[in-house]
Amino acid sequence: MEIIKTAVAAPNIALVKYWGKRDNLLKLAYNDSISITLDDSVIFTKTTVGLSEKLKKDVIIFNGKKVEDEKIAEWIELARGRVAKKAPEIAEMGMLIVTKNNFPSSAGIASSASGFAALSEAFCACAKITDAKEKSIIARLGSGSASRSVIGGFSQWVCGRRPDGEDSYAVQLAPKKHWDELVDVIAIISSAKKKISSKEGMENTAKNSPLFACRLKEVNERIGRVQKAILKKDFESLANEMMRDSNSMHATALDSWPPVFYLNDVSREIIEETHKLNERGIVAGYTFDAGPNAHIICEKKNLQKVKNMLLKVKGVKKIICAGVGGGSKIVEGENKEFAKFVKKYLPK
Amino acid sequence: MEIIKTAVAAPNIALVKYWGKRDNLLKLAYNDSISITLDDSVIFTKTTVGLSEKLKKDVIIFNGKKVEDEKIAEWIELARGRVAKKAPEIAEMGMLIVTKNNFPSSAGIASSASGFAALSEAFCACAKITDAKEKSIIARLGSGSASRSVIGGFSQWVCGRRPDGEDSYAVQLAPKKHWDELVDVIAIISSAKKKISSKEGMENTAKNSPLFACRLKEVNERIGRVQKAILKKDFESLANEMMRDSNSMHATALDSWPPVFYLNDVSREIIEETHKLNERGIVAGYTFDAGPNAHIICEKKNLQKVKNMLLKVKGVKKIICAGVGGGSKIVEGENKEFAKFVKKYLPK
Repeated sequence: MEIIKTAVAAPNIALVKYWGKRDNLLKLAYNDSISITLDDSVIFTKTTVGLSEKLKKDVIIFNGKKVEDEKIAEWIELARGRVAKKAPEIAEMGMLIVTKNNFPSSAGIASSASGFAALSEAFCACAKITDAKEKSIIARLGSGSASRSVIGGFSQWVCGRRPDGEDSYAVQLAPKKHWDELVDVIAIISSAKKKISSKEGMENTAKNSPLFACRLKEVNERIGRVQKAILKKDFESLANEMMRDSNSMHATALDSWPPVFYLNDVSREIIEETHKLNERGIVAGYTFDAGPNAHIICEKKNLQKVKNMLLKVKGVKKIICAGVGGGSKIVEGENKEFAKFVKKYLPK
Repeated sequence: MEIIKTAVAAPNIALVKYWGKRDNLLKLAYNDSISITLDDSVIFTKTTVGLSEKLKKDVIIFNGKKVEDEKIAEWIELARGRVAKKAPEIAEMGMLIVTKNNFPSSAGIASSASGFAALSEAFCACAKITDAKEKSIIARLGSGSASRSVIGGFSQWVCGRRPDGEDSYAVQLAPKKHWDELVDVIAIISSAKKKISSKEGMENTAKNSPLFACRLKEVNERIGRVQKAILKKDFESLANEMMRDSNSMHATALDSWPPVFYLNDVSREIIEETHKLNERGIVAGYTFDAGPNAHIICEKKNLQKVKNMLLKVKGVKKIICAGVGGGSKIVEGENKEFAKFVKKYLPK
């Protein structure tokens, strides 16, 4: 291969959710969102991108197997278009992508965020793109939430207003070390593939939920409050806002047509138990993405309390703890697995 | 006793929900609601009201036992105040109320609607009030949804705008015989008393849900569509509107703070199964009050299909079928049970 780069990225957990696209192809959101990028020593996608003129067709290897992936194919086209002017040689080369998650991809943990962040990080390194804004835009073209995972620490995806998306990318609100005491306790309830993807769910909501307009108004006000809570390290305010935002998102999903449910009875029990835990003072905040699995954010000093709470809930199958991470990054060194696939797919 | 009247009333099932009060004491709603009053030969409250000057203290007998009931005590005061001018002798007499439900009061079927409708019907008969509007207002003072149960067939509670509630009462959209083919298939999932009463749930929503404003706007438009569907006997439109309204109400409950859940995994399965059943043409509409139990409205010709669907769902404990009813009414004849309590509580 002419150029080979390997990157690692972690999922992020949104405190203010991205829910609803104003542009499906360019992945442009209706509202700003804020997230914590997780610690990539716990949970990560590792992706190697190889570019070669000899490679006539792009090849995608996911968790060791060659796959046809429409989302990635679409992204490759968009990403190529983006670098065509500055690095035309890159745009003309075939691409071999070898990607792997160290966590179950079907477990409802944002694998598309870490996946497209790692892919974009590696691709940008191949094309010598180092600008954080540009990297975030390229990641966004794969998956909206991936725009945030390229940024470390506390990240805000500014949704922008332009139809071409040039003002739609993530910026850092605060680095990892600003509030390194936070931890995301992920309670795996179900590893079954969800019936309704987040893409479908959010499209349905934006199109069909009459409550959605009120959510957008509320979220716009919430963004400011969450920014402030992060900058002041005001855990109580952060926890309240993130829980309300999660409820609001799932409420609009329920209001879409046909209704979309991601929470189940176990999720609901965790919500109720978290409120009980918070009765004598806020120690935890829950949030749920497009699935039943719970993310409970707490400060490390309260980690045991949160674990104890979750252990009481029947139906919690596994607990993963991830702190705040530093964003996507290039890793050096040879990738043996990748070399194997080069041999197999690259014509001599 | 000087005056004794017995009345029977059935619960009603709201197709457009009453959710949120602008006045707690007078039970004034934020929005109009539309319901079907159910058949009182299947499901009913039977209430006898006895009035006597000799009775110094009001006595309430509920399902055979003397109870202290704040809601009823509050209603008695308001109802007395209302008749004080026209029938001062009534307002001065003590009241013995003997009331009974033929269905489990804790099963999440609107027992307060049938209860206060029967109580108001009997009390109004004592006071020689025959005006439907006045009867509906007096029932409303006990429970908002009771204002609709005094009306037979298809009933719209016009929420009104006046602070004194004089323009807030139910009117008949169509009589029972207009669309007698409809049936409410009630799937009892749980007879456990709900953790959060509908009173609390709706207060929380109106106060804390930012999505609530959007619901009110949507409901105001829905009322016109549901009126039209009833008048045209357009089942498809009726079913779609009622399902969307139920989802919208439960969405705002989830958006309140702390969030309120009435639906559980079984409710959710019934929702999903109903959508499947409707895939080849709309045959059923679901709606859920402040509890997990499902009300599936269908035309009688599709009753078996709906029953088959419900029988497949694990967790459905009992099915009750009730057609459209004629509204609250006075029944003649002696009530032996009542006579027993007269003996016990009326001083000689």
